[in-house]
Amino acid sequence: MSDKHLSSQFDADLNLVSSKVLEMGGLVEAQITRAMQALNDFDIDIADQVILAEDTVNTMEVDIDEECSNVIARRQPAARDLRLLLAISKTITNLERAGDEAEKIAKRVKRLSEEGASRTVNIAEIKLSGEMAASILRRALDAFARLDTVAAAQIVRDDKAIDEEFRAFVRKLVTYMMEDPRTISVGLEFLFIAKAIERIGDHAKNIAEFIIYIVKGTDVRHKGRDTLEREALS
Amino acid sequence: MSDKHLSSQFDADLNLVSSKVLEMGGLVEAQITRAMQALNDFDIDIADQVILAEDTVNTMEVDIDEECSNVIARRQPAARDLRLLLAISKTITNLERAGDEAEKIAKRVKRLSEEGASRTVNIAEIKLSGEMAASILRRALDAFARLDTVAAAQIVRDDKAIDEEFRAFVRKLVTYMMEDPRTISVGLEFLFIAKAIERIGDHAKNIAEFIIYIVKGTDVRHKGRDTLEREALS
Repeated sequence: MSDKHLSSQFDADLNLVSSKVLEMGGLVEAQITRAMQALNDFDIDIADQVILAEDTVNTMEVDIDEECSNVIARRQPAARDLRLLLAISKTITNLERAGDEAEKIAKRVKRLSEEGASRTVNIAEIKLSGEMAASILRRALDAFARLDTVAAAQIVRDDKAIDEEFRAFVRKLVTYMMEDPRTISVGLEFLFIAKAIERIGDHAKNIAEFIIYIVKGTDVRHKGRDTLEREALS
Repeated sequence: MSDKHLSSQFDADLNLVSSKVLEMGGLVEAQITRAMQALNDFDIDIADQVILAEDTVNTMEVDIDEECSNVIARRQPAARDLRLLLAISKTITNLERAGDEAEKIAKRVKRLSEEGASRTVNIAEIKLSGEMAASILRRALDAFARLDTVAAAQIVRDDKAIDEEFRAFVRKLVTYMMEDPRTISVGLEFLFIAKAIERIGDHAKNIAEFIIYIVKGTDVRHKGRDTLEREALS
């Protein structure tokens, strides 16, 4: 059996795993979009759909992890190929957690709707940051598919904007609550929703960092923005 | 070179990696304890120590990940050995995140202290859940060192108690804030601290689930308590 043969078998395995990751990512992205739609319309049915689909996301994580493990055992990859598989295993953990956050949003929307909570708080920042989070997750998956480190570096930068929106919302919420303490209980629900969105952005950022690790072999986690950009663009 | 020789080399590699994980875990546990002490005494110096040591935790994560990857490439393990290394790689991600949460607590304590915020909110639940979180993380590391699935199952159960404390604190906080809206701003700081502790508990639970995966080869994530207990005790 030639090296070439071995290598093309490995490539086929890898393509299969990668396509599953993108499929999982597409589902998680849809979960986030639906959760935001449920929030926008206070729609219990859509919230229920998100809660129901969470199980599929979980199953995909476990399946892909098993597949990664099988490919490593079968093909014994080294260097970049091994890095790719290890990074995939961590990427799907981040995707699953992002899916968890979408479910948490859906559950809170459902409770708020069932309690008949009127929209007492202007949640423009939450909507904006929800759109931003879905968008950078999609771009992280695109960058993963193309192993595009330049796009990955941009995603790390853009996550900061989501964090900013979150902080702006918290500041506004404090003002609202102080002006009208009756909004406190509902306000905290929105706070947790905003926090969930901020975490989705973090997961997208983590995925982007893994892309740079796969391609460059440099672990850019915790390295600060300058190192990360230098690596990504080198 | 005999199989035995290969195997004992692998064991030596594995022991080294495992001992590094325990060392990292010990540091993270210390970070949590220190962060809680900073909170208890409103002590900026201790908070600063936590913030300073965060870098060491990050470096350990990157080092251990690289070591895992090297051992896989060099020894080409299969089955349980490979599972162990993959689970270690995910365990340290959880440890690092738990360390992040300790740092977040320290930063908020520092800000609260610098702003001269008096302790306007009774934080008994936060202190209790902080102790519980440090304790279950320690037990998760012990269970990891002994690959003790029975202890791991108990940790998954105990994490629920931390979640309960968190919810109790949020309910109390809403009452406080409504009674005295001047507590809202400080109250939210405490809310984020409580949330960070709750997440530390989640990370300990994740580590416990990996232990069951390593030993039993069954991925018990998302499987519900019954399946988990059956696997752990089988």
